[in-house]
Amino acid sequence: MEQPIRYHLIKKEKHTGARLGELITPHGTFPTPIFMPVGTQASVKTMAPEELQEMGATVILANTYHLWLRPGSPLVKEAGGLHQFMNWKQGILTDSGGFQVFSLAKRRGITEEGVTFKSHLDGRLMFLSPEKAIHIENDLGPDIMMSLDECPPFFESYDYLKASVARTSRWAQRGLQAHRNPNSQGIFGIVQGGGYEDLRRQSAQDLTSLDFAGYSIGGLSVGESKAEMNHVLEFTTPLLPENKPRYLMGVGTADSLIDGVIRGIDMFDCVLPTRIARNGTCMTSQGRLVVKNAQYAHDFTPLDPNCNCYACRNYSRAYIRHLLQVNETFGIHLTSYHNLYYLIHLMSQIRQAIQDDNLLDLRAQVFEQYGFNQKNAKNF
Amino acid sequence: MEQPIRYHLIKKEKHTGARLGELITPHGTFPTPIFMPVGTQASVKTMAPEELQEMGATVILANTYHLWLRPGSPLVKEAGGLHQFMNWKQGILTDSGGFQVFSLAKRRGITEEGVTFKSHLDGRLMFLSPEKAIHIENDLGPDIMMSLDECPPFFESYDYLKASVARTSRWAQRGLQAHRNPNSQGIFGIVQGGGYEDLRRQSAQDLTSLDFAGYSIGGLSVGESKAEMNHVLEFTTPLLPENKPRYLMGVGTADSLIDGVIRGIDMFDCVLPTRIARNGTCMTSQGRLVVKNAQYAHDFTPLDPNCNCYACRNYSRAYIRHLLQVNETFGIHLTSYHNLYYLIHLMSQIRQAIQDDNLLDLRAQVFEQYGFNQKNAKNF
Repeated sequence: MEQPIRYHLIKKEKHTGARLGELITPHGTFPTPIFMPVGTQASVKTMAPEELQEMGATVILANTYHLWLRPGSPLVKEAGGLHQFMNWKQGILTDSGGFQVFSLAKRRGITEEGVTFKSHLDGRLMFLSPEKAIHIENDLGPDIMMSLDECPPFFESYDYLKASVARTSRWAQRGLQAHRNPNSQGIFGIVQGGGYEDLRRQSAQDLTSLDFAGYSIGGLSVGESKAEMNHVLEFTTPLLPENKPRYLMGVGTADSLIDGVIRGIDMFDCVLPTRIARNGTCMTSQGRLVVKNAQYAHDFTPLDPNCNCYACRNYSRAYIRHLLQVNETFGIHLTSYHNLYYLIHLMSQIRQAIQDDNLLDLRAQVFEQYGFNQKNAKNF
Repeated sequence: MEQPIRYHLIKKEKHTGARLGELITPHGTFPTPIFMPVGTQASVKTMAPEELQEMGATVILANTYHLWLRPGSPLVKEAGGLHQFMNWKQGILTDSGGFQVFSLAKRRGITEEGVTFKSHLDGRLMFLSPEKAIHIENDLGPDIMMSLDECPPFFESYDYLKASVARTSRWAQRGLQAHRNPNSQGIFGIVQGGGYEDLRRQSAQDLTSLDFAGYSIGGLSVGESKAEMNHVLEFTTPLLPENKPRYLMGVGTADSLIDGVIRGIDMFDCVLPTRIARNGTCMTSQGRLVVKNAQYAHDFTPLDPNCNCYACRNYSRAYIRHLLQVNETFGIHLTSYHNLYYLIHLMSQIRQAIQDDNLLDLRAQVFEQYGFNQKNAKNF
């Protein structure tokens, strides 16, 4: 039987570890590397699906934990799955719910069986196991599902992380066995292990010995430095098979996307572009721009003069600032549109740079725009 | 010099006072009767201009009071006027700010000169005169401006209303004289007089003796019954010239639109469709539907099975209910889109019914959908 999720490597960049490829899903074949907008509650905040498609989004995320609580996975299943429920015709990926259980909910305890926690909405006691996570995701019906992992803090003790990695591996195997729709959905295993090379190696070994459709790298972008994140990627991605997609979870700044791609990552997601948009912060070719600031009150230029998105083609900083000042949601819609477009367009530039073998030039250009330190570029 | 705003009467309906016509503005010629969506703060809540155009909106409203406070009319002027500021290429109408001064703000006192009040935002003492209102509207740059009127409660005493009507007439004349852009903007006078026929006649006489581009009927939909409103329209619209547009301010229920058209009204506006949308209430061919209700949790049919709007073509009641439950603004966007489409589509049906001389049939059909009492249909 052929896996519903496959990866096709097209080309490696000459000077870095970057890969140009294709992610093959039941809802289309998409060029990688990609950035995936997050639609936590079955809606990418303020965005219509047609707008996401128009800006070039191909795979979007939804959060299992949130949808499990509201409206509940049986209802989504009854609707015909997430694609039909939310009117999104291309790829969908769901996380396992684990990250939210460990961050949002009040946790009661982890056992071999799973994790008991209180809902962050009403305090109701709930239980999530590797099997339960996969069954919820089977009901939600995304193309790509995550297996349940524990996501401990980056600076957790070695002994704790070692036991946690071993348990996450056992959970991964249980999740694979619980999978009810192997013809239409693929599961990714999640490599954990904090900052420890031997634990990351153990985790990768455990998971690659199982037949996952792809591999996620978890436990990063949770408080460690960018140098530490890059370092972990440098020794982790080489442990993953070339013929499977690699997904770095929860990363969405321009510099981290480029540095992740350079280290062999194919897929990224993050709430950052829509979250900061709600505070009026925009990602631009001139670095970050806080359009709410008073200095833009009479500025009739677009958010980013070098951007061709809907917001930049039609509206001024002054108008968007006004909308944000008076709490008109159309303002947040415009900043969200712009930020998502920025990252999706950046990924398209990155793919072109891999094709042209000049990704480090693009990196230098973007880092200069943001005033970032240029070091760490070549340690991939 | 030709008025920038003109009205062309095409046809009267055979059995009622309804008029099919055209409103000619510097930003296009639009068939009437029309419903005008309200964009209080230079944005029709949650809607992109392209979406409004796609659903058939032709003229939209903006509120002078709100824009005067934020971002301030000089800034809008600096932006090139409202059309350019908010990226709306068709007609714009602004009110005078009077209604908000008399409803939102804390009023300090009315004199012959104007009205002193405290801003509802920061308590700042402000002053609005007929000249000031027109100058602010000149800065905002809409196609159609309202002259400053006093909008007293419907059940105010006869003596008060009589004095108020006289003052509103004097204010109207002062506003006309203060107008700085007579080549590109037209002013409407506002007929007041509560429920008193002689006061409405006096007001209409005063205003029609001046060269206004059109006439508004104010002081309705402020607490009186529908029968009372219809009664006032019946004796007021015949007092207005046939060759000018007639605008009933603040009215936006399906039944009142039809009953207004039957009595010779050409233009309507109301925040109702977007306001009730935010509470999940939808106007449908089956009457009002509160999609937030639990009964729709598993309902995978559209908001209105007979509607062809974007929301109804693509999303279910269950999905929209979910979005509203979890506070995703895309849910409010969909209900707002639907309600605006409903009223704009209703106006298009009304225009067809005037053309076909069967408006009373359409009235009976809509009133049955909403379970309304059918009386008052023929007292026009």
